[in-house]
Amino acid sequence: MKRLAINGHTIELLLFDVFGTLVDWRGSLVKWFETYGRATNRSADWPGLVDAWRGAYQPSMDPIRQGRRPFVTLDVLHRESLDRLLAERGLADVSQEDRQAMVAAWHALNPWPDSAAGLARLKRVYVTATLSNGGVPLLVDLARHGGLVFDTILSADLFRQYKPAPSVYRGAVELLCRRPENAMMVAAHPSDLAAAAACGLRTARVFRPLEYGPGRTPPDEPSANWNVTAHDLLDMADRLGA
Amino acid sequence: MKRLAINGHTIELLLFDVFGTLVDWRGSLVKWFETYGRATNRSADWPGLVDAWRGAYQPSMDPIRQGRRPFVTLDVLHRESLDRLLAERGLADVSQEDRQAMVAAWHALNPWPDSAAGLARLKRVYVTATLSNGGVPLLVDLARHGGLVFDTILSADLFRQYKPAPSVYRGAVELLCRRPENAMMVAAHPSDLAAAAACGLRTARVFRPLEYGPGRTPPDEPSANWNVTAHDLLDMADRLGA
Repeated sequence: MKRLAINGHTIELLLFDVFGTLVDWRGSLVKWFETYGRATNRSADWPGLVDAWRGAYQPSMDPIRQGRRPFVTLDVLHRESLDRLLAERGLADVSQEDRQAMVAAWHALNPWPDSAAGLARLKRVYVTATLSNGGVPLLVDLARHGGLVFDTILSADLFRQYKPAPSVYRGAVELLCRRPENAMMVAAHPSDLAAAAACGLRTARVFRPLEYGPGRTPPDEPSANWNVTAHDLLDMADRLGA
Repeated sequence: MKRLAINGHTIELLLFDVFGTLVDWRGSLVKWFETYGRATNRSADWPGLVDAWRGAYQPSMDPIRQGRRPFVTLDVLHRESLDRLLAERGLADVSQEDRQAMVAAWHALNPWPDSAAGLARLKRVYVTATLSNGGVPLLVDLARHGGLVFDTILSADLFRQYKPAPSVYRGAVELLCRRPENAMMVAAHPSDLAAAAACGLRTARVFRPLEYGPGRTPPDEPSANWNVTAHDLLDMADRLGA
């Protein structure tokens, strides 16, 4: 079990993005809301609500990234955007308890079929950690729910700032006493990888063509931008010698 | 698998002390130095050096606890006290590389025989985390070395303060979004448990009579001080319904 080296620097640490990269947020949430709709006799455009909720994700973090708002956890941001979307979509009568359950549904997203097995293989050879904008408790819940193993959970919570702020990538590498060239960011999203690369980390792209739903594959980036590209985490384990 | 409740509050989160509670620092280090002595043809009172090194542990953190020194990791403190002890003991010619290896030996301490199996059982029922004065990379290395599983690694590093400062216990509970009455500190040391209890956490004492070497069992505290007492982590898993 030989670790991958890039330009003479051995990769020791793998940092994993989570939403979309390891878990299927859209499929899991659409299923959750459809079950909720049947149980409560409500009909609504549930996939549209889920897409709009995720659409609010990046803008909701911007005031914190820009220093205009103190750090709050993703659960708080999720709740704020949910409240707004329910009001906009004629669902203002949804109870407080149900809203809490909707935010909690993000803690029980299902992994992609290869995630658990791929992570287990990679952990045998590399130190592994999440590096996600999800909160520590959310990530702990996701890992337990999906049988995802890591050496530790790193989150925006620890750095009180959200990706793609450089302080998150640098903070993670420093906390684990590595140098950027000994760390690799693993993600489905080019923006995450580009930000990690700008901090000196190595990058691995995993393709998740179903993240935004069937037939909605995002346009691809040239793979030459990344040190490794893989179809899924099992393919990545092969490519990383794990 | 029913979680323990104490005074009507269900325990959800277990926080584990590590040195002495989960791993045998003294036995592991004495063996390391004896091997080192044979390999380098040096003779010295290795058990005495190990005991003195551990003896320097609490005093070395005091300036940080008292706000007289900015936070540095335990690896840094270990190195400082090692340098002083080697000089005092006629071992000033030990090389820089060997000193680094001595500090690194703290990253490969062996667990007590029951630790891995007990932690695995407890993790099935409770969210589990370390809460140690060891650094995050040290704890990750110990967990990998000993096959110890946790949901996440929490360390003094994250709070930039050392136990028994209340900010460490409170920070851990808040980071995992629990209330103190839903969290339990698991430790071999009464001082650690008393500090956790003062922050409102529940407490579980595990007996480690061999921590300081054979025949050097520390005097016992009345077990009535703690919510749970156990002979080892398997006994603790029994008592916590795991």
